[in-house]
Amino acid sequence: MFDDITTPTLLLNEAVCRRNIHRMAEKARQLGIRLRPHMKTPQSIEVARWLRDYGLNAITVSSFRMAEYFAADGWEDITVAFPVNIREMEAIKSLSERIRLNITVENLEGARALQDQLSQRVRVWAKVNIGNNRTGLPPEDTARLDALLDYFAQADKLRFSGFLGHAGQSYADRGVAAIAQTHQSSLAAMQTLRDRYQGRFPQLEISVGDTPTASVMDSFPGVDEIRPGNFLFYDLMQWQIGACTPADIAVAMACPVVAKHPDRHEIVLYGGAVHFSKDFLTFSDDKPFYGLAAKWGEGGWELLQPGAYLRKLSQEHGLLRVTEDLFGKIDVGTLIMILPIHSCLTANLMKAYRLMDGKRIGMMP
Amino acid sequence: MFDDITTPTLLLNEAVCRRNIHRMAEKARQLGIRLRPHMKTPQSIEVARWLRDYGLNAITVSSFRMAEYFAADGWEDITVAFPVNIREMEAIKSLSERIRLNITVENLEGARALQDQLSQRVRVWAKVNIGNNRTGLPPEDTARLDALLDYFAQADKLRFSGFLGHAGQSYADRGVAAIAQTHQSSLAAMQTLRDRYQGRFPQLEISVGDTPTASVMDSFPGVDEIRPGNFLFYDLMQWQIGACTPADIAVAMACPVVAKHPDRHEIVLYGGAVHFSKDFLTFSDDKPFYGLAAKWGEGGWELLQPGAYLRKLSQEHGLLRVTEDLFGKIDVGTLIMILPIHSCLTANLMKAYRLMDGKRIGMMP
Repeated sequence: MFDDITTPTLLLNEAVCRRNIHRMAEKARQLGIRLRPHMKTPQSIEVARWLRDYGLNAITVSSFRMAEYFAADGWEDITVAFPVNIREMEAIKSLSERIRLNITVENLEGARALQDQLSQRVRVWAKVNIGNNRTGLPPEDTARLDALLDYFAQADKLRFSGFLGHAGQSYADRGVAAIAQTHQSSLAAMQTLRDRYQGRFPQLEISVGDTPTASVMDSFPGVDEIRPGNFLFYDLMQWQIGACTPADIAVAMACPVVAKHPDRHEIVLYGGAVHFSKDFLTFSDDKPFYGLAAKWGEGGWELLQPGAYLRKLSQEHGLLRVTEDLFGKIDVGTLIMILPIHSCLTANLMKAYRLMDGKRIGMMP
Repeated sequence: MFDDITTPTLLLNEAVCRRNIHRMAEKARQLGIRLRPHMKTPQSIEVARWLRDYGLNAITVSSFRMAEYFAADGWEDITVAFPVNIREMEAIKSLSERIRLNITVENLEGARALQDQLSQRVRVWAKVNIGNNRTGLPPEDTARLDALLDYFAQADKLRFSGFLGHAGQSYADRGVAAIAQTHQSSLAAMQTLRDRYQGRFPQLEISVGDTPTASVMDSFPGVDEIRPGNFLFYDLMQWQIGACTPADIAVAMACPVVAKHPDRHEIVLYGGAVHFSKDFLTFSDDKPFYGLAAKWGEGGWELLQPGAYLRKLSQEHGLLRVTEDLFGKIDVGTLIMILPIHSCLTANLMKAYRLMDGKRIGMMP
C-alpha cells in the first residue's frame, strides 16, 4: 500500500472522518440543535460533500475567500466566523447577492460598512467573548452591546440573528471535568445575553463552536447551533485534551525515511515545518513534540508503542526519536505515518489529501 | 499606499533584498568563495533572477520539486541540500539529465540508489554533522565516512565533490561572540575532514550554510562555498540572533485591523497562523510573541516604539498588544505592518509577494 508515495503525503481516512461526522450529526439531531461544521479544518469541497449524506446543509468558514470557494460548489448557507473586515466589502457584497450569508460583527464600524454598502439583506451575528479573550464584545459590556444591537435594529440591510461565541479556552483544558467547567461558564455567559435581549429580539439564536465541548458534552442548554470543525479530523491536541481517541484521528502524514542516526536513535524523515506546521505538545516531561508515529490498525490509527516522537522540525526535515528495538526495524526508504498535533494547520499546508484507496482529493488553492 | 490591499499580504521590499544580496555577494567575492544562496527562503523565480545581477549563477534548494521549479527557469547548477530520498529516484534521474545537479548523500542506501538508477553522472556531497545534530554523518565516525567515500570512489555515476554541512545550531546563538564560537567549532570539524581525505580526493570542497555565521563572520578558512538563504529576507529571529538589523528585513505582512478591545489594549488583526506560521520568540520576560509591528522608514522597516507585540495567533486571527497611546491611533480598517519571526515559513504559507510599487510576484505553487 502507498508504494507510489515519494514525498510527504497527507492521508485521509474517509471512513474515520464519516464516523466522526455521523456521531456529531446524531448528537445534534438528538439535542435538536443545528450542526454547522467549520470547514477551515478540511478546506475541501470533496469533504464538504460528505456532510450532505448526514443531512447537513449549513457550514462555517473563516474567510470570505473560503466562503466563495464553498459557495461555488453549491453551499447556500454559510457563516463567516471572523469579524467582518471592512476592506473586503466588494467580496462580501458579491457573495451576499448569491447565498444566505451570515456575518459576524462586533463593532459599529463593521455594522455601518455592511449597511452602507450591501444591496441585499444579510444575517448578522454579534460576536461575543465567552472566555477565549480573542475577539468579541464582553457580555458584561452592555453599553457597547446595546449600541450595536440598536444599530442592527434600525438597519434595513442587517437582520440580527443572535450571539455567536467560541469557547476556544477549552483547548487549554485537559479532561472531561475541565471541559465541563468551560462549557458551563461559556453557556452561562450566553444565557445572560439571552435573558437580557430576548424580549426585544424574540428570534435570537445562540451559536457556539469549539470541538472539545461539542465532542464531550451531552447537554447544550440554550444553544441553537454548534460550529465545531476540528472534529472532522481530530488530532493529537484533541486527544491530549480528552476530546477523542487516536482511533478517531482521520489524517496522518506519510513520511519517507531518508536517514538513520544510530548514535542518537533518531530517524530523519522527509516531513518538516512546511508539512506539519510548528504546533507542538508536551507531556509531563515538558519536552516538546510535533507528532507521534502510528500504524493503521482495526478501524483507526494506533500509536506505536512505547512511543515514537517527532522531536524536531526544520523546514523539510523531521527528527523521529525511537527506541532501540524500533530503530532496528525501520529502513531508509520506508514510509512512517505521523499523526499531527494540529490537523487544521497541517491540512492548510498540504493543500491535498490522499484517501486510503489511493484517490487524491483537492483543497482550496 | 496599499489602499487596494484587502486581506493579509506579504510585502517584499526589492531594494532591501537587493542590498542584502549585494552585501553577501561582495563578501563572498572578496573572500574568494562561492555564494550559492538557498532558495527555500523566497521560493520564487522572480527573486532568483535578481541574483543574476550580482554575478550569481548557482543556487541551493531543499527539495527536488523545488529544483525542478528553478531548473525550468534556466538555473543549471543546483544543490539539493536535503538527504537523498530514494523514493524519488525518477524525479532525480530526470533532473540529472538536464542540469548540473549536486546531491547530498549520507548513507550507502542513498549512494547505491543513485549509482544503480541514474543514467548521467552527478556530483555528490557527503553530508556531515557539524554540530546541528539534525542530519549528516558525525565527522569522527571515520568508519562510516570511509565506507561512503570508498563507495563514491568506485561508482562511475557519482563524482564526489566534498563535504557539506549546516551549522544550524547558530540559530540558538545570541550575539557575535556566540556565533563566532559556532563558526570556529563547525569549521574545525570541516578542517579535520579535509585533513583526512584531501590526499585521496585533492579536488574536494567544503560547503557550509547558515545565515548567522555567513552574515556576521568575515573569515571562512578552508571554506569553498557558503549556502545561506534567510539573509535574502532576514527576520526577527535573525535580528534577535544578532545577524541583522530591523532595517535589513525585506518582508512584512500587511494585516487589516478588524476589531479593537480597549479593556485589554488589544487590536485584532486579520493575520494568523495560516499567514505567519507558529514560530515565536521571547525576550527576557519569557512571554512568546509571533511578530512585531513596524512602519516604513528611511530605507527600511522600523519597529514601532515602545513595541507592539503580536501576542497570540489562531488560524486567521492575530492579537496585537499595544500601548494605550498607540491604541488610540489605530482604527478598524487600517493596515498594520508586522515583521515576521521566520521569513522562510511565512513566505512558504503566503505563496506570493507584493512589491512596494504594487507589483505582484509569484512563488513555487
